[in-house]
This record gives sequence, structure tokens and C-alpha cells, in this order.
Amino acid sequence: MFFHRQELQHKAKPDAPDAVYARKLQEVLGGQYGEITVALQYQFQGWNMHMPGKYRDLVFGIGAEEMGHVEMLAVMIAQLLEKSPLGITDEAVQKDPTVAAVIGGTDIQHGIVAGAGARPVDSMGNPWSGSYITASGNLLADFTANANAEMQGRLQVARLYHMTDDHGVRDLLGFLLARDTMHQNQWLAAAEELKAEKIEELPVPSNFPLSKEERDVSYQYLNFSDGAAASEGSWASGPTPDGKGEFTYHDGPTTTAPYPGPTHPDARFYGTTEVPNRIEKIAGAAQDMFHKE
Amino acid sequence: MFFHRQELQHKAKPDAPDAVYARKLQEVLGGQYGEITVALQYQFQGWNMHMPGKYRDLVFGIGAEEMGHVEMLAVMIAQLLEKSPLGITDEAVQKDPTVAAVIGGTDIQHGIVAGAGARPVDSMGNPWSGSYITASGNLLADFTANANAEMQGRLQVARLYHMTDDHGVRDLLGFLLARDTMHQNQWLAAAEELKAEKIEELPVPSNFPLSKEERDVSYQYLNFSDGAAASEGSWASGPTPDGKGEFTYHDGPTTTAPYPGPTHPDARFYGTTEVPNRIEKIAGAAQDMFHKE
Amino acid sequence: MFFHRQELQHKAKPDAPDAVYARKLQEVLGGQYGEITVALQYQFQGWNMHMPGKYRDLVFGIGAEEMGHVEMLAVMIAQLLEKSPLGITDEAVQKDPTVAAVIGGTDIQHGIVAGAGARPVDSMGNPWSGSYITASGNLLADFTANANAEMQGRLQVARLYHMTDDHGVRDLLGFLLARDTMHQNQWLAAAEELKAEKIEELPVPSNFPLSKEERDVSYQYLNFSDGAAASEGSWASGPTPDGKGEFTYHDGPTTTAPYPGPTHPDARFYGTTEVPNRIEKIAGAAQDMFHKE
Amino acid sequence: MFFHRQELQHKAKPDAPDAVYARKLQEVLGGQYGEITVALQYQFQGWNMHMPGKYRDLVFGIGAEEMGHVEMLAVMIAQLLEKSPLGITDEAVQKDPTVAAVIGGTDIQHGIVAGAGARPVDSMGNPWSGSYITASGNLLADFTANANAEMQGRLQVARLYHMTDDHGVRDLLGFLLARDTMHQNQWLAAAEELKAEKIEELPVPSNFPLSKEERDVSYQYLNFSDGAAASEGSWASGPTPDGKGEFTYHDGPTTTAPYPGPTHPDARFYGTTEVPNRIEKIAGAAQDMFHKE
Amino acid sequence: MFFHRQELQHKAKPDAPDAVYARKLQEVLGGQYGEITVALQYQFQGWNMHMPGKYRDLVFGIGAEEMGHVEMLAVMIAQLLEKSPLGITDEAVQKDPTVAAVIGGTDIQHGIVAGAGARPVDSMGNPWSGSYITASGNLLADFTANANAEMQGRLQVARLYHMTDDHGVRDLLGFLLARDTMHQNQWLAAAEELKAEKIEELPVPSNFPLSKEERDVSYQYLNFSDGAAASEGSWASGPTPDGKGEFTYHDGPTTTAPYPGPTHPDARFYGTTEVPNRIEKIAGAAQDMFHKE
Amino acid sequence: MFFHRQELQHKAKPDAPDAVYARKLQEVLGGQYGEITVALQYQFQGWNMHMPGKYRDLVFGIGAEEMGHVEMLAVMIAQLLEKSPLGITDEAVQKDPTVAAVIGGTDIQHGIVAGAGARPVDSMGNPWSGSYITASGNLLADFTANANAEMQGRLQVARLYHMTDDHGVRDLLGFLLARDTMHQNQWLAAAEELKAEKIEELPVPSNFPLSKEERDVSYQYLNFSDGAAASEGSWASGPTPDGKGEFTYHDGPTTTAPYPGPTHPDARFYGTTEVPNRIEKIAGAAQDMFHKE
Repeated sequence: MFFHRQELQHKAKPDAPDAVYARKLQEVLGGQYGEITVALQYQFQGWNMHMPGKYRDLVFGIGAEEMGHVEMLAVMIAQLLEKSPLGITDEAVQKDPTVAAVIGGTDIQHGIVAGAGARPVDSMGNPWSGSYITASGNLLADFTANANAEMQGRLQVARLYHMTDDHGVRDLLGFLLARDTMHQNQWLAAAEELKAEKIEELPVPSNFPLSKEERDVSYQYLNFSDGAAASEGSWASGPTPDGKGEFTYHDGPTTTAPYPGPTHPDARFYGTTEVPNRIEKIAGAAQDMFHKE
Repeated sequence: MFFHRQELQHKAKPDAPDAVYARKLQEVLGGQYGEITVALQYQFQGWNMHMPGKYRDLVFGIGAEEMGHVEMLAVMIAQLLEKSPLGITDEAVQKDPTVAAVIGGTDIQHGIVAGAGARPVDSMGNPWSGSYITASGNLLADFTANANAEMQGRLQVARLYHMTDDHGVRDLLGFLLARDTMHQNQWLAAAEELKAEKIEELPVPSNFPLSKEERDVSYQYLNFSDGAAASEGSWASGPTPDGKGEFTYHDGPTTTAPYPGPTHPDARFYGTTEVPNRIEKIAGAAQDMFHKE
Repeated sequence: MFFHRQELQHKAKPDAPDAVYARKLQEVLGGQYGEITVALQYQFQGWNMHMPGKYRDLVFGIGAEEMGHVEMLAVMIAQLLEKSPLGITDEAVQKDPTVAAVIGGTDIQHGIVAGAGARPVDSMGNPWSGSYITASGNLLADFTANANAEMQGRLQVARLYHMTDDHGVRDLLGFLLARDTMHQNQWLAAAEELKAEKIEELPVPSNFPLSKEERDVSYQYLNFSDGAAASEGSWASGPTPDGKGEFTYHDGPTTTAPYPGPTHPDARFYGTTEVPNRIEKIAGAAQDMFHKE
Repeated sequence: MFFHRQELQHKAKPDAPDAVYARKLQEVLGGQYGEITVALQYQFQGWNMHMPGKYRDLVFGIGAEEMGHVEMLAVMIAQLLEKSPLGITDEAVQKDPTVAAVIGGTDIQHGIVAGAGARPVDSMGNPWSGSYITASGNLLADFTANANAEMQGRLQVARLYHMTDDHGVRDLLGFLLARDTMHQNQWLAAAEELKAEKIEELPVPSNFPLSKEERDVSYQYLNFSDGAAASEGSWASGPTPDGKGEFTYHDGPTTTAPYPGPTHPDARFYGTTEVPNRIEKIAGAAQDMFHKE
Repeated sequence: MFFHRQELQHKAKPDAPDAVYARKLQEVLGGQYGEITVALQYQFQGWNMHMPGKYRDLVFGIGAEEMGHVEMLAVMIAQLLEKSPLGITDEAVQKDPTVAAVIGGTDIQHGIVAGAGARPVDSMGNPWSGSYITASGNLLADFTANANAEMQGRLQVARLYHMTDDHGVRDLLGFLLARDTMHQNQWLAAAEELKAEKIEELPVPSNFPLSKEERDVSYQYLNFSDGAAASEGSWASGPTPDGKGEFTYHDGPTTTAPYPGPTHPDARFYGTTEVPNRIEKIAGAAQDMFHKE
Repeated sequence: MFFHRQELQHKAKPDAPDAVYARKLQEVLGGQYGEITVALQYQFQGWNMHMPGKYRDLVFGIGAEEMGHVEMLAVMIAQLLEKSPLGITDEAVQKDPTVAAVIGGTDIQHGIVAGAGARPVDSMGNPWSGSYITASGNLLADFTANANAEMQGRLQVARLYHMTDDHGVRDLLGFLLARDTMHQNQWLAAAEELKAEKIEELPVPSNFPLSKEERDVSYQYLNFSDGAAASEGSWASGPTPDGKGEFTYHDGPTTTAPYPGPTHPDARFYGTTEVPNRIEKIAGAAQDMFHKE
């Protein structure tokens, strides 16, 4: 169950409206790595988790906070849009180019669709999508996904910080940056804890029987490009992070197989084949396969 | 530049056709974490990279290999579809329920649209989307994204392994599992190398001035759910993975701010406000703002 | 701010797993009119609302409840998937057609992607989309959208009720049906209250100056099809619901205008026009328009 | 069957081209609540309708008119794009900022993709989607959806009216506003008629056996936020619009249930569980479930 | 303007309901090459056309017919769904596997969302998208797009023909196949007519100044794969279809250029670069570029 | 298998950065007819092809070249973004309108998401979609699709050519235009070769038994609009391109059928029907259909 309190975790009030910046801020509300993504990602991980206790408490504990971050950004955006210009004509643009610039840089649907309100979209107007979420049931994989999400998110907030000098906006971003610092650290700590407690280890999934994978190529760096420096990295020699092998370096593939022969599906798919008289073949085909003409 | 060779990295030939399994295999070809995703993700990271040398060689070296993995899965799927039934009627289904089951489990577009061929979609038929890709220009963030992609991908291949007992398919999956093992290890090694070389460190992005973030809350675990075990993890006390702080645990928020007052956008957006006589207000508004009625 | 409590509003426990039904239930979790839609729709309406007080309290009060409904459905789905079959082969299908049927009817990503967990998608696997949400800032319009969402939602739950005889599932659906009854009633009551308080009225938006609309056709029923009964409804004669006019009935349009002449864009768009010598025209065009060749 | 006549219902000719406004106008052509949506929504409702006569005639009668509205907007947009600038360089922008502003505000695909023509997209360039449509087969729900669509549509046209002072455009918008007034009224009248004729009533669907819903909570307002004014509305006390109950007000939930225990899916999904020795468990699992390893 | 007549161009009545086939038929209603696509594609081409007369009459003349084809398929689908099973439980499936098969093969939203009605989606449930449409303003390009659409469409209908033996369905498909035959022929004839009348020719767009393209490589077949037979086709030697050149064959590229050096964007994007002391660089950067820190 | 070489087919270096143009160039990288589309389209055609030899070599030979074109555009875009402004404030915009114009015209995610790098999206920010691809298995249909793709692509590049006067960009576009000239010619030559070799002919698919299509209407031009010139084209009289018929011209349909009666699905879908006492009917229905209530 969720409970809402009409209070914010941090002040979300701009010094002044700025409709162009409002659009940019949509990225961290409704983008691939915005707050809707992390809020729902952590909650889905919780709902699907097969293990009660500290790990489930962790995803629930943060998931609800992130919902509140969605809210802070939404009310911030609504305020940034407060003076969103509506009655702008082509003439007005010619008189005052700044006005036109504002128009060019705003999310048009902020005005026409939302009446100067926030929307569940990214900075280019793409609606938020359920396909942004990762919740696989394997916690080491998912906590790595979470660490990545918090890194990408903090990176985007840092870039946004330099795109405004509104103190109210920067205050909020400074707060979000700090929380992203926390969450980055937390997911990395949680991933280490999973390994320390032998709950999961590398390679993910660790309990897939290694005998079933083709171990000959499990630690080979195969260079399919022609970069001379490819062999210099720690991925080309030395022990592997999973502690189970030794990297080796190879130019190109170490294995090859001939291309399989072409397929011959039912002639009634009307695919192009080398057979010239396919209509006759179809007549024949009609005799088999469920007695259909 | 890319060059294609009509050879495969590994044999991709099923023992027998299996249209139902062909659909399942689409997940690792065209899904969120399928081979198209990693192939294009690594290449976009290369094209956008601001640093020549071993890291760029690495993403190019693997990116081209992954394009070949797309190919192996596509030709495998085409062969699995070779006996894809077409001439099935309702009667046939009633006579042989197995036939109907096959129909229920297949990707219908494999037949109608592709004529028994592979498609750039996932196992539920969603087309592959450019929004699956991550290429931010920050390598520590992106290598974490890559590690996650390889973990999720290996997890999915492992699950698919148990969904068939076709030896040809399992051979190929065993090969892909090994390559995913390699790539997981490699991205983790590369992420460590970035830190060891002081190119990037935690929190990402590490060179954002910490003075601008609200450091008071940078290492606070704030529990917005009611799980009792939330405080037991390594994310609630002790040193943080970035080496710059100490975790502390708190029940709920440590900061709050009052909800901002409602916004008052231009009356001509016709939003609902508490003002009763809004038409008059609109008449007034028409006088300002670019002299529009 | 949002707070999560590890408790549910209603028991969400099926009698037995049923992976086929789990997929169907996704519709009311992540479909166009599923719980994610109403949860986020009401919250966005709240964040964008220009009027504090009872109406904003209303959307916040319900929005948080709906987040809890998402949760109940998600944990229900995860339990329905508990015995989700994984190791199914073509042979197994031939031996036991029921098994195959299960495969045909399940969401394949429930297994491969989520490891037997719920996903933010509808029953056909389409990811939830931000474009499902309506939050225009005009409350009479939005409450009508909400009433529709609750009607469509209750209709879908009612249909789902008949698709299972699992008592645990039916218990939960019976609860959701009751809450949808409440929410339907509530949004209709709120819409009436807006009108009673003269905050907004018909036609929406009511304070757009009627003098600017072409009032001649504001209450004409224009029948562009040939149905004989079209004139019998209350929409073809009598007073209009907005209390400002009288319906009249007309076969086809009462106004027409000639088709405008074709456009002549810049020749460098290479559109097809009737002019034969367009290359010369392009040479000419290069002289004007920003001095470009 | 549909027949096209090369005439318009209303003049659609701008005073002058305006590529920036052309983009804005796309919202009511190809947006969530644009004319394509209502045209196809009403027609799908007709094709799916289980009842011939006046209600089906109504949806067909209006559906075809809306197709003509799509056309009027498309030809208007093509004319607004007639002088769409193509040969603009960075230098040109620096000389005349107005030019640049135009570029910033236009739909780039209007030029590059459509050669100065209209497109089936909204004002932010999102392609029109079949998921915008509602046609459930339940007419009271669907007519409520239609009323909402006409309200949102009229609201957007009203906002667009203030974004231009081109008389030709405003003439057309004044006509569309009038038709939206009509259609809003008409769907509300039709919804009332359904109830008056006892064909459908509240709550939708009205013939679901109420005994199967948990009537205890059917009229409870449960406040999951902390707004003090939540109890003041007509949704918190008094008779309910469906005439079958009495609203009551409650702070928070009136029912709760414990969180269900975690699920234990097949170990071969490689989800994270508390069991340490999962590989052994997998070996065991291989013995059951379709005899797969 | 469009007018609807409650009559069909051809009988659309199945012998018997078949919910599984109803789903398949969605492909040619709402798929990439379904009837919605061609109906809207031809109409958008008409609305955007810069040339009145026979070509515009052609696209309008066919566009409206295709809207009627959408209708025939929709009412056919609704009838195929008439006995769509709703009250199916897991037990029922175990008793009668055919029932389960039906469930596996149906579009689940046909029941839950549309109440046994047609939907604007393809056979895998993806909503129809505006991105399926092509209307570029260049008629030779667009008529080629149209010819392709009619070929793909006829191919899909032909495949669907073999998937049923319902005489009513086959009658309708036989009619649609004939109309696709007509439309394929017609677009090819129209494309030839454009060339014969010197309105447009190859290569499209023909009036782009050839002097501006790098003519050295305009007719070179460059083989980036290793297929031995690549040189045998009419694309590798002999005159070119545009009548302006002669094909030549080459193994791989005939031109190459060195890879450009890496980019150095503003340090405040926090991209990874080889510079170690980037924070200092950022401090410096803050001094220029619009005086931001 | 694919191999990458760190070299380009043509120089891809702009004279100067231009973030606004970078966004426009995205269209031919990641749009409906951009290079990702043709690269993957040709490769999928190859993977699905049922016929080894020159035709398969052809699609593979070009497919890999197109991947290199994606690369050239991506590195060009990254360089165009090199001076992408980040630290822009509202004040800066007011001082220098050119700055604002740049903001308005750029892809906002180029900065915030990609850190001044290319993205897999079109010029309006829509992510590339697998639904752009055509690979049906019928080569005459698919080569027509390819010819169309190259025509649309060359048209877009030609338009883009006039939108810049940067010599470096124009050099690259001149090269791409030449390759599009080649590829247009090549697909048309290949389509002719298929016909010359009697592998496939018109109408596609040519081996569908013509006796099963309703030949009466196979060559009738049916004019569903009212254009007077519709009968003048070569599509209204004379021999048909497939050599199998003669065009005839008709005003409107030559066949009609009455509208089918309404459907009567299971009452438990709660669709609206003319039956007043539907609840009783439901009670009855519960008796049949799998014994469900």
C-alpha cells in the first residue's frame, strides 16, 4: 500500500518560470533513466522478489522515495511553465526573436495538451514506456541494472545543472544529485553483499551448470575490429573478475562454421525459391498438411 | 566500415524445426537485452567516444562480433520455422490438439509477414526499439550498462536453454552463454581499469563538483517503506563504495518542505482555477501578452 | 511524498498457479485502462492542478490507492506464475496437449525476461505507455476522462471475473470491482460538483468566448452516413445538455467549400509538380532564399 | 463503404504560410485526441456494435464527418507549410534570428520526410497510435469516452485559437470548435438516452451481478493522501450517482491484508532466493517437470 | 469530405466463428501493410499533392475504397469473434485441449478490451502506427511505395487464404486478392506514366543536380560480403535502369578515408576523455560559454 | 560474421560544428528510411532467403556497406555536436537570440542523454523501430520495397543537401547520393532479373492460383472519389502491367452487399445489446459454456 503526504522531500520552487528549461527537465522525470523508471523498476523488483528480508526491504524503501522524486520534478515543471507564453503569433516572433526562441525550445504539448503542466514524457516528447524497466528476478543482474540507472540518472542531472542558473532549480538538482550519489553507492554495496553472502556470484546466473557452456571460448577476447590497442586492456590477459579463468587475446574468431543451407518452407508462403514450377509444387503440397487446398 | 563473411562463428542448425521455440528465441535476437541491442549499443558507444585507444578498440571489437550473433540467431530461427504449419483450419485443430497448441505458441507474423523467417522483434512481437540503447559518453556509466546487458542476456539464454532439448539449439546456446560469460567479465574488468587509471571514479560523474550537491543526504539510507530488515544491509552503515562517506540509516525522510502553492498560468489555457469570473479575466489577459485576443 | 507499507488493501492470493490467467490479468495492471494508468493519471492531475483544496485532495487521495492496486495485481500475478512451466519441449507438448495450450496462452516474457514475475505490460505484451494518461488542467474534461477510465476498467475486471473460477483471484476481483464502482460514482459526483459550483460548465472549456465559434453549426446533427434511424435520438432534436441550444437534424453537411488549390513549396523539396522544367526553376530558386545553391 | 468528395465542409485556407503553427496544428490532426482518433474510434465502435438502429447510425454518422475534419486540417497544414524554409544555413541564422526561431519551432520531418506536407503525427512528432482508440462494446462506457475525447479536443482547439491571429486559420478553428460543441452535447445526450431506455446504467457494466462485488467498500471514500478538504466533496457523503448507495468518508484503508509470502518458481529461472545450494536443487528439479535437464 | 454508406463492397460473412483466425486477420486490417495503412497513405498523398488532376484523383479514388476494406475486415472479425469463449477456466482446458488451444491462439484483448470486437492492431497485438505511412510529395517514390504496399498486402492475404477453409472468409479474401491485383498494376502503370510524361524519372529525385553527387561511385557495385555469385547479376555490369550509366563490379570499397579524430565537447557533459585533470578543465570552461559555472 | 575496420568509406568531417544540423541529419541515420533501416532490412532479407546464389550475395553485399553508412553519419553527427552549447541560461538567450535559436533547433537528448553524441533516433527524436523493416521472403515484393527505400532515402538526402553549406557535410552527402543512385538502380535491375528468369512475376505473389481470386474485379478502376480526371490515366484503360488483363473504368463500386446483422457475443462480455433483461440472459449463459457462473 502507498500513502501520499502533501509535502515534499525538498523545496521545489524555481526563482522564475522558464518554459524552455521545463522541457529539458522532462528528461529526468519521464525519460529512459528518469524518476518514473527507477520508481517503477524498484517496485516491480520488490513485487517479483522471491526472498523476503533486507533485499526486498531495500527495493521497497527506495522505490517509494523515487515516486516522491517524480512528484518534486512534476511540480517544479508546472511552476517553470507558469508564464508559458500562449498568445504568440508570427508577428510577435519577428518583433522579438527571444519569444520565437522560447517557442522553438518548448515542449508544445506542455501548452496544448497539458495546459501548462508536466507530462509523462522525455525531453523530446516520447511517452514513458514500460520497456524501460528491468526486473528479472536475479538480484545481482538487477542491482547492476539499478547501479547503471543511478549513474546515467546522476550524469543527466549533472548536465542539466549547467543548463540553468536559476537558484531554485539548482537547489533541487543539488539534492537529487546527492540522492543519486547515495543510490549509486547503495546498489553497488548491495551487489557486493549478494556475492559476499554467496547468494549469487559471477558469471550471472552463477548456478547455470558451467559444463553446459562452451568453456573454450568463455575467456577469449575476440577482436572483430582492427584496433591495435585492443590487446592492452585487462580484458585481454590476466585473471577474470569471476575468478574462474584467465583472459586470452585473439585477432578475430577462433571458431567458424559453414553457413547453413537455405530453408524450404511450405510453398504456400509464396517465398522466392530456385524452383521454377512452384505452382505445381503447391498443388502437391495441398495434398498433405491438414488436407487443405 | 563493416565487412560480411558468409560463415558463422558457430554452427547454428537445429535438429528439427520447432516454430514455438523460434518465437521464444526472438527474445534474445530482438528484445530489450537481445543481440541487436548490444551490437548497436557498443557501436554507438564507439562512434560517440571521445578517447581513441584501447577502450574504443574494445567496444568496436565486441560490437562487430555481436552483429554476427544476431545473424546466427536469425538463421537458426529461419530453420526452426522451416516446417512452420500454414494450412491449419479450425477442424484440424479439433482433430489434433497439438497442432492448435503450436498455433497458439507461434509468432503469427513469422508466417503471415515474414513467410517463415526471423523478424526484428522480441518474443511477444514488440519491434526492437532504439530506446533500448545506452551510450552516454561517460564510460564508467556505459560499461556498467554493458555489464548489466550481458548479465540479463546470459540469464535469458540460460532460461531458454531449459526450454528445449534440441541438441543443435543447445549447442548454439552453449556457445552464446560462454561469450556472455566473457563479455560480462570483460566489461567489469574495463570498468575497474577506468577507475585504476583515474579516468573516472565513483560517484559517476566523478568530476561534478561535490560542493554543488547537498552532501548532507549523500550517504543517508532513507527508508520510505516499513521493512524491519532495511537497516541490516551494508548500505545502511559502514563506509561507502565510493570511499568518500559513511552510510547512515533513517526511517523516512530527514528533510521536508511544504507543498508549493498552485500555479496561475494564462487564463487562455482554460485550466480550472478557483477564480469564478474567468471569462472577464481572459478579456483582461487579451490586452497584454503580444496583443492577442 | 509517498510512503509504502508492506501490507495490502485486500488479500491477493490465488488458490493455485495459472500462468495463462496471469497473462490475462496483465491487462488491468499495465493496459490502456489498467491500474498504472489511473494511478499516474490522477497524480499528474494533482501535480498540475491550479487549485488547492478538495479537488486536489481528491485526486491525490485516490491516486495513492491506485498505486496499491498495481501492487496487489503484481503480487497476484507473481503467485499465479509460481508453477510457470519452463522445461517444456516439443515432445512434451505432443504427449500432453494441455501443456502446449498453457505455452500458447502465456506471456513468454513472464518466463524469459521476468523469471516468473509481473511486468509493466498489457495482456498482449505491449509495454505501458505514458500516452495513456490524460491531465489537461481542465477538471471537467479530466474528471470525464477519469469516469471513462473507471468504467472501462470495471468492464475489463468484470470480463476477467468470468475467465477464472479460482476463488482467491475472484475475491480480489470482487474487491477491485467494488472500488471501481466507488471511483466511477465519485468522478461523476465531482464533475457535477464542478458544474454546481460554477467552476466549469458545458461545453468544455466553457469560458472560451462563444462569439468566436461558428454558432450556426453548434447544435446541428449532420448525418454523414445513411442510417435511417439517425434522426430519432435525443441528439437530433430538443434542448442540448449544455442548456444553450436546440438540436436540429440534417442529412449530410449544411456547409461546403471548394477544395483549395495545390501548394507550390520550394522546388528543392523535389516534390512532383506539373511544371516540366523544374531544374531550371531550382536554379532560379537558388538565387533567393538565404543565398543557397 | 466510404465515398470521397473533393470538397471541404468549411474553408481551410490560411492568410499566410506559418510553418511553426503548422506543427502545432498537428496536435489536433494526429495527437491522442486529434481527428484521426475520433474518426477511427467512432467507426470501430460502429463496426463492433451489437445493436443496429439509432445508436449505430449515430457513430457512423459522425465518424465519416470526422474523416473530413482530418482532411481539412491536413490541407490547412500543407498550405501553412508552403513557404517552409529549406535552404537555411547557420550563417543565415546568425544574420536573421527570426529564421532560426522558425527552424527551432518547426516539425523537421514536415520538410525532410514529407516535402512540406502534413503527417500522421502529433505536435511533438509522435506517430498516431492505434492505442489511442476506445471501443469496448459497452456503449455507456464508450459514449463517456467519446464525450471526454470531444472535451479534450475542444480544449486543445481553443488553446490553438489563441496561438495565431491568421484569420483563415481562426475561421477554420471557429468551425471546429462549434462542431466539438455539438459532439460533446450529442455524446452526453446519447449517454443519458441509454440510461433512460434502461439499456445500460451505472455502475458500468450495470448487469454484472452486484452480489459478486465486495459491496462493503463500494461507496467508501478512502483517503490515501493527507488533504484536509478531502471529506468536503459530494463524493464523501450523500447519495451516490448510481442511486444505489450512500458515500462514506474514511481516512486511509478500511481493510488490510498481510503481504503474501515470497514465491518459489522453478530453480531454472535462476531467480535469487534465500536457498544457498541452488545448483543441487536444480539437479533435483531436472527430475520432475517434463523430464528435462 | 467523406460519406459513409451502410453497405459493403463485398459480402463479409464467415460460415462460422473462429476466434483464432480473427486474430490472424488483424494483420491485414491493422498491420504494417494492412488496410488502415493504405487507406491513410493514399489520402495523405492526396492532401499533400502539389498537382491537381489525374494523379490526385487517383490517390483519392483508391484511398476511399481502402477505408471500405478496413470496414469489411472489421465486421468480418467481429463475426468471427461471435462465439469467442469467455468463461474458460484451467479445468476446462484440461478437459478439452481444443479449448485451450483456442485461448492460446486468440488476441486476448479481443475479449477483455473490445468485448468480442475488432481492434486497430496487427496479429501480434501491436497498435497501428502513423510511422507505417509514406507520403513524401515525390510521386515516383510514393507510387513505388504504394506498389510495394500492395505487393506485401496481396502476399499476406494469399498466405491467410491457406490458413482457413471457411468459405465466407475465403470469398472475401478472393475479392481482396483481386483488388490487390488491380492496385499493384495500377501503381506500376502510374509510375510508368510519370516517367512517360517526363514529370519525374530515375534516379529519384531526378532533378537534383547530378553534378553535386559523387558520380564516380554512382554505378559501382561494391561487394562488402564474400559471395562469389555477386558479380553475375544484371546489377554488376551492363546499362543501368536510369539510362545514365554502366554498372561496374568491385570487391569491397573503391574509396576509403581515415577515421576522424575524437571529439572534445564541453567538459561539463562529463564524457570520458584522456585528460586526467578534468575538474580543473571544467573550472576553466566555466569562464567562457555564456558565463556559466 | 561481420568484421569492422577503423576506416570510413568516405571522409566524414564537417567544416564546423552545427548542432542544429546534427539533429536534421539524424533522419537519415535513424529514421523510417535511414541507414539503420536499409542495413538491417537487407541483412534480414539475406538471413531469411530461401535461395543461395547471386540474389542472396546481393543483399549481403549491400547490407554490410549500409552498416558503414550508419557509422559515417554517426561520426559526422558527433563532430557536428562538438561545440554543442551546454551552459545556456535564459539570460544568455535574451542577450543573443542566435543562441536561443540553436537551443530550439537541437535534439535535446544529444546533450542530456548522449553527452554530445549520435543517437538511434530520427530528426524528431523517435527511436528507430524494428517495424520499419520489410523482409517477406518474396523477393519481387522485397526488392520493390528496397527500391522505394532507396528512393525515399535519396530524396531525403537531397533535401538535407540544401539545408547546409558546410563543405564537409555536402561532400559526404554527395557521396551518399551517389550510392543511393546506385542502389536504386540495382534493386530495379534485380527486380527485372527476377521476372526475366521467371522466378517471380506480377501480380505478386504470382503463383497464387488466379482461379481463387475474384477475377471480375481484378482490373477494374473503381473511383470512390469524384475526380473528373480519374479516367484519363493509363490505369483506367489499356493493357495491364502484369500482361494478364485490360483496365476498365467505373464510377464507384461495381459490386455491393448488404451490411451483415449485428453480432451476439456471450452476454458476460457486457456489451450493449437491444435485449432489455440481460442479467437473466447471463444467468442462462452460465449454464452452458464450460459450466462457469
